[in-house]
Amino acid sequence: MLKQKVQNLIDEMTLDEKIGQLLQLATPFFKGSSDQGFITGPMQEMGITDDVVRNTGSVLGGSGAKETRNIQETHLKENRLGIPLLMMADIVHGFKTIFPVPLAIGCSWDMELAEKSAEIAAKEASVSGVHVTFAPMVDLVRDPRWGRVMESTGEDPYLNSEFARAFVRGFQGSDLTNDKDRVAACVKHFAAYGAPEGGRDYNTVNMSERQLRESYLPAYKAALDEGCEMVMTAFNTVDGIPATANKKLMRDLLRDEWGFEGVIISDWGAVKEQLPHGVAEDEAEAAYKALQAGVDIEMMTTCYIDHIKELVESGALAESLVDESVERILSLKQKLGLFENPYRGADEKRAAEVILCEEHRQTARELAAKSCVLLKNENVLPLKPEQKIALIGSFAQSGDLMGPWSWQGAHEDVVKVDTGLRTKLADPSLLSVAVGSDVETVTTEQLKEAVDTAKDADVVVLALGEASFMSGEAGCRADIRLPEPQLQLIQEIKKLGKPTVAVLFNGRPLDLHGVVEHVDAVLEAWYPGTEGGAAIADLLFGDVNPTGRLSMSMPFSVGQVPVYYNHFNTGRPQPTPDNKERYLSHYLDIPNEPLFPFGFGLSYTEFKYEDVKLSGDTLTEDGKLIASVTVTNTGDRAGEELVQLYIRDIAGEVVRPVKELKGYKKIELEPGVSETVTFEIKEEMLRYHHENLEFKSDAGRFNAFIGKNSQDVVSVPFKLVK
Amino acid sequence: MLKQKVQNLIDEMTLDEKIGQLLQLATPFFKGSSDQGFITGPMQEMGITDDVVRNTGSVLGGSGAKETRNIQETHLKENRLGIPLLMMADIVHGFKTIFPVPLAIGCSWDMELAEKSAEIAAKEASVSGVHVTFAPMVDLVRDPRWGRVMESTGEDPYLNSEFARAFVRGFQGSDLTNDKDRVAACVKHFAAYGAPEGGRDYNTVNMSERQLRESYLPAYKAALDEGCEMVMTAFNTVDGIPATANKKLMRDLLRDEWGFEGVIISDWGAVKEQLPHGVAEDEAEAAYKALQAGVDIEMMTTCYIDHIKELVESGALAESLVDESVERILSLKQKLGLFENPYRGADEKRAAEVILCEEHRQTARELAAKSCVLLKNENVLPLKPEQKIALIGSFAQSGDLMGPWSWQGAHEDVVKVDTGLRTKLADPSLLSVAVGSDVETVTTEQLKEAVDTAKDADVVVLALGEASFMSGEAGCRADIRLPEPQLQLIQEIKKLGKPTVAVLFNGRPLDLHGVVEHVDAVLEAWYPGTEGGAAIADLLFGDVNPTGRLSMSMPFSVGQVPVYYNHFNTGRPQPTPDNKERYLSHYLDIPNEPLFPFGFGLSYTEFKYEDVKLSGDTLTEDGKLIASVTVTNTGDRAGEELVQLYIRDIAGEVVRPVKELKGYKKIELEPGVSETVTFEIKEEMLRYHHENLEFKSDAGRFNAFIGKNSQDVVSVPFKLVK
Repeated sequence: MLKQKVQNLIDEMTLDEKIGQLLQLATPFFKGSSDQGFITGPMQEMGITDDVVRNTGSVLGGSGAKETRNIQETHLKENRLGIPLLMMADIVHGFKTIFPVPLAIGCSWDMELAEKSAEIAAKEASVSGVHVTFAPMVDLVRDPRWGRVMESTGEDPYLNSEFARAFVRGFQGSDLTNDKDRVAACVKHFAAYGAPEGGRDYNTVNMSERQLRESYLPAYKAALDEGCEMVMTAFNTVDGIPATANKKLMRDLLRDEWGFEGVIISDWGAVKEQLPHGVAEDEAEAAYKALQAGVDIEMMTTCYIDHIKELVESGALAESLVDESVERILSLKQKLGLFENPYRGADEKRAAEVILCEEHRQTARELAAKSCVLLKNENVLPLKPEQKIALIGSFAQSGDLMGPWSWQGAHEDVVKVDTGLRTKLADPSLLSVAVGSDVETVTTEQLKEAVDTAKDADVVVLALGEASFMSGEAGCRADIRLPEPQLQLIQEIKKLGKPTVAVLFNGRPLDLHGVVEHVDAVLEAWYPGTEGGAAIADLLFGDVNPTGRLSMSMPFSVGQVPVYYNHFNTGRPQPTPDNKERYLSHYLDIPNEPLFPFGFGLSYTEFKYEDVKLSGDTLTEDGKLIASVTVTNTGDRAGEELVQLYIRDIAGEVVRPVKELKGYKKIELEPGVSETVTFEIKEEMLRYHHENLEFKSDAGRFNAFIGKNSQDVVSVPFKLVK
Repeated sequence: MLKQKVQNLIDEMTLDEKIGQLLQLATPFFKGSSDQGFITGPMQEMGITDDVVRNTGSVLGGSGAKETRNIQETHLKENRLGIPLLMMADIVHGFKTIFPVPLAIGCSWDMELAEKSAEIAAKEASVSGVHVTFAPMVDLVRDPRWGRVMESTGEDPYLNSEFARAFVRGFQGSDLTNDKDRVAACVKHFAAYGAPEGGRDYNTVNMSERQLRESYLPAYKAALDEGCEMVMTAFNTVDGIPATANKKLMRDLLRDEWGFEGVIISDWGAVKEQLPHGVAEDEAEAAYKALQAGVDIEMMTTCYIDHIKELVESGALAESLVDESVERILSLKQKLGLFENPYRGADEKRAAEVILCEEHRQTARELAAKSCVLLKNENVLPLKPEQKIALIGSFAQSGDLMGPWSWQGAHEDVVKVDTGLRTKLADPSLLSVAVGSDVETVTTEQLKEAVDTAKDADVVVLALGEASFMSGEAGCRADIRLPEPQLQLIQEIKKLGKPTVAVLFNGRPLDLHGVVEHVDAVLEAWYPGTEGGAAIADLLFGDVNPTGRLSMSMPFSVGQVPVYYNHFNTGRPQPTPDNKERYLSHYLDIPNEPLFPFGFGLSYTEFKYEDVKLSGDTLTEDGKLIASVTVTNTGDRAGEELVQLYIRDIAGEVVRPVKELKGYKKIELEPGVSETVTFEIKEEMLRYHHENLEFKSDAGRFNAFIGKNSQDVVSVPFKLVK
C-alpha cells in the first residue's frame, strides 16, 4: 500500500526528476538567488543550475530548525511534485551536547549510555531539522596512525557490533515514523575503511575476503540487523575496487546476501573519485559503475545528474536501476513521514528547550566519566579537596575537549578542566593554572611559568594532548607520540619531584613513552566532550571511581603497528615477553605486547579473581557451559569491575585468534564483597569462516579465559563435541 | 625410462624406507655413534634412532668435501637399498666467497653479474659436496622492519622476477645432470613470506588472492619457469592457513595450475609449527595436513616419520601420496646423478683450488661495487689519493661486511674498509682510523678519539651501520634508524665542519634522518661481502663510477611503512608533496614520499634525458610501440646510466598501480656523448588480474614514463585499442 504510493509518485516523475533524487548537495546550494557569490562560484564550477537544485533529493549538513524549515519550504514550492528534501548531517557523537568521541565511548563498554547518547544526539538533531545522521561509524581499527580511529569504538568485532547496535537503537528508536525525536541512521564506511595502508587516510585497503568477513564486516551487519536505514560507502578500495564502485560489496553482499533494502549513499565526492582511483576514465563511466554497483545517492559530485540520463537513453543503463534507487529514497522519505510533515521534528521552540539541557549535559558527564581510562596510579589519585593543585598544560583551560566531528559543539559550552577541578576544591584558590606549552610549540617563558606555578603545589595535574585537528578525517600522524614540546614540559615538571598526574586528550592510542614513566598517574581522557572538565574532576577527586577499559590497544611504539589483542599465534610464538631466543616471532628492540592491552583500565579499588571454572569440560551442539569466576573487591572503596570472557579455538581448519572477546559483565561491589559472575558458552559462539568461507564450528579443543583485560586472564580448557 | 628406474626402486622400498625419504635432518644426526652427546641429547629428545637416520632422505647444512663424502659413504653402507643422500644447504649469496646480500644485488640491476655470483656460489658449494641450495629467496618486500628484506632483491615484481631467473640460471646452469659445478635451486619462501604483519618475522600475512597473484607470486613463478628444481614453503599463514598446510597454494596452484613437478620442502620445523599456528591439534594431524597439502620433505621435525605410517595403515592417507613424494625426491637424486656418483662434485682438491680463488674474488668485488648506491654527494666524492683521510666508525676495521646468511664466510677473508682505502692512497699513512663508537654503544673516550683522529684530516669517512645480527632471519627492528650512539658520533664529527662521507652497512632500508642531513655524501653499501672494502675503495676514489639504484624504497620514517613506488593512487591523491590541503591522502607530519625512491642512485657524472617519445599514440593487440629517450652524459667523466621504463593504466576494471616497472636498460656513455635508448611496448605488458582474476589487458588510456628513477620521469600517453 505504502509501496504503491511511492510507485505512483515514481510513475509521475520525469527521468530528470528521478535522477535529481539521486543527488545530494550541501545547504549553500539551496540558498538560491540569495547568495550570488555561490551561484557564480561553486555552483557554476560544478555546472549546477537552479533546475538541478529544484529536483535534488537530499541535503548535506543542514541544521537549525529555522534554516532547515526555510530550505524545505522553498524547495516544496520549487519542486514540481512537491517531493520533500531529506536533510542529512554528520551527528557523530552528539549534536550540540557533545559526548566523548566514539573511541572513548568504546572504552566505556556501556551500551545503555552509548544508546542514550545517540538518543540525545538524535533529539537535538531532529528538533534542528535533521532527518538522517551519517553515523554510526563502525569501522574496525588497528592502526593508531589513522586519524579516524577516534570515530570508531575500537579493534574488536564483537564489541564494535554491540556498539553499532546500541547507536542505531539510540538514533532510530523503535518507531522511526512516529517518534519525531529520532533520526534515521546511516552506518559507515562500507567497507573496511578502518584498514588504510600505512594508517594514511583514504589509502588502499588490502585484505582477503576471509579477513573482511571475519573481522571487518560484523559491525556493519550488526547495525543493519538492528534496522539501520542507510549505508555509506567507503573512500577506499576493497580488493582493488573502490567501495563506491564495488558491486560485490553492494549488490552481492549488502543486497543479495544480507537483504538490505535501505538507501546506499556515497561518501563525499566518492563517485567522482573513481577517476583518480583509476577505475573510470571519465565521469560518465564513474556514474555508470557506481549505479550499477549499487550507489543510490551521489554526494556532492555530479556524475549522476550529468550522465545517467544519456546512459539510460543510450540503453547502457536500465531505467529500472534508476527507479529502484528512487524507490528506496522515496520510501525512506515516506518512512520518516516527510510527505505528511516535511519539517518532521524541526521546531525552534523545542530546540531552545532541549538542546544542551541539563539532562543532556548530565548524561554527557556520566558517559565522559565512564569513557576515561585510568592507565597508571601510584598513590596519587584520587586528589583531595584540600590539596594545593597546579594545573598545567595547553588543555588546562582549553575548550578543545570535544574532538573532531563536533561541528555544532561550541568551545564556550564546554566545561573546561580548570572549571571542573575548581568546583571540587575546598577553596577555589587552591588551584593555580599555567599553560606550560602550546600543543606543538613551547617557549622558555612558558616552561618557567609552569615550573613557578608547580613548585608550591602539593600535586601537579598536567592536561596534555593532541589538538583535535591532529586526528579525525585526514588527521593522520606518522609519529604518534605526544608532541615533543609537551614531552619537554613533562621533563621540566618531573625535576620538581612533585606527585604528578597526566590527563591526556587525544584522538588515538598514543605511544605514551615520555609520559607514563615520568608521572605518577595517567588518566586517558580522549576527547570527553562538553562536560569533559566536570567528568575529569569527578574522576580525579574520586567522586566517580574509574571504570573505563581500553577498546583499542595502546602501542609500545609506532614501529609495532598494527598491534591488537586478537592476533594469530604464528608458528613461532614468543612464550613469554622476556624470552629472547633468536628464532621466535619478535622484535630485537621492543616487546610484541602493546604498552597497555585491550581491555585494560584501573580502578581506585582492587578486584581479586578466584575460582575461574567451567560447569563441565565438554560442550555439545545444543548444550551450554557456564563459565564462572568469583570477584572480590579487596580495596577500601566501592567500585565497578568489567569481567571479560575470551575464547580460543586451539586448532581450526583456518587459524583462529589467540583470544576473541565473547562476553563481558559489569559488576558493582562494595569493599570486601564478593560476587560470582557467570557467562554462558554455546556452540554458536565458536563459529568462524572455514576455508571455503562456510561459517560453522569445529569439534575439538578450546580455551575459555576470564580476566580483567585481554592479557591478565585465567584459562580453562573445554571440548566441543559434535 | 628414467622414470621406470625410480619406480622400480620405489617398488622395492618398505613403507618405512619411503617415509624416511621424506625426512630431512641436519648433519650432526649422521655422525652416528661418534657423537655420544648428540645421540643421548637431541636425537633422543626427537625420538630419532639409528634406524631412522639410516632411512633418511636428505641432509641439511652439510658442507665440506670431506665431511659430506664421509656422511654419504657411511650412509650408503647403512641404507638397505643404497639410496644416496641429498645434501642441501643455505647458499644464499655466496659460499665462501661472499657476494653482497641479495638486497644489494637487487640494487645492481645487473642480471649477468647476479647470475655469475650464483654460478660461483654453486661451484664453491658443489665442490664442497652440496647438491641443493635453499635459494633464491624471491619474497617481495615492502616493510624494512622485517629482518629478511636483506635476503630479497626488493619491492618490484618485475625486477624480482628477473633476478629469480638469473639466480636459478646461475645455480643450475643448463645441464644440471652433467655440470657438476652446479647445484639444484630451491626457490623460497612460498608464498608471500615477505609481507609479515608489523614487519615481525614469522607473523601473519594477510592479503587478497588478487594481491598475491599480482605482486607476490610472479617471482616464484619466474624461478620455476627457469627450471628451478625445488620449492620451500613459507613459515607464515596465507589467507589464514599456514603455507606448509596450504593445499590451495601447493596442490592447486603449484602442481595443478603451474604444473610444477619438483620437490616441495617445508622450512625448518614448519610442519610441526602447525601446532602453534593452530591448525593441527597434534603431530599426527600436522603430518596428515602437510602431506595432503603437498609438502614432500619435512625439515627437522618428525611428524612424518612418527605418524605417516599409522595414517597410511589406518587408511587415512593414501600410500600413493607417499609414493608420489618419494618419486619426486628420487627423481631429483637421479637428475643430480647421485645414483651413479653419490659424491657428485665433492672434491677436496678442487675445493682448495676454486674456493675464494682470485676470479671469484674479482667477481665479488665487481658486483659489490655495482650494488652500492650513492645517495648523496655534495662536492666531496670521489676522494683523491693525496687527501688525508680519517676513517671512523665501528665498520672501519670490521669483518662484519658479509651480512646474514654467510655461514661459510670468514671475517678474516674479508677485505676491510681500511684495507681497501689504504691501497688507494698515495701514502698509506694518509689514512688514520678510529672506532668512534660500537654499533649500539659509545663511550666518551671513543668519541674523543674519533674527534682527535678527524681533526687533522682533509676528509672524514664514517663507516657506520647495523651489526649483521640486526637483520636477517628473526632480526626485526621497530626502530629502523641507525643506532643512537652512531647518530651521536655523527653529531660530534659534524662539529668539526670537515667534508664528511658516510658509508653505510646495513641489511634494510633505514630511516636515514640523523645521517643524510649532517654529512656531505652517503654511500649505501649494504653488506657488500668478502670484497667489500676493496669495492668501496674503488667507488670512493672513483675508480668505479657508482651505478647502483635502489630496488627498495628508503622510508622517510618507520611511521610511513609500508612505502613502495608501485602503490595505488587513492581517490584523493596529494597532487604535489607541498600541497597541504586537509582532505587529501597524506600525513600531517611527514611526506607521503620515501626519503629516497625506488630506482634512485647517483653517479659521479650527470645524465640529461631529452626527447622522450613514443613511435605512435596507439597500440594494437599485435603491434608494438617504441618508447625512446635520448640520454646525454653532461658531466666530465664516463659513467653508466640505468634508464627506466614505467607504465600506468589510467583506468582498469581493478585499480592499477601509479607506475609499474616494465623495462630498464644500462648504457655507458663517455662525457659529452649521447645515446638514444629504446623500449618496446607490447600489449602483453599491459595485462593484469581482472575482477574475476582473469589475466588480460583492457583497451583504453595508458601513460609510459621514462626516467632516472621512479619519481624523476617524463610521461607520454598512449592508447591500447582492441
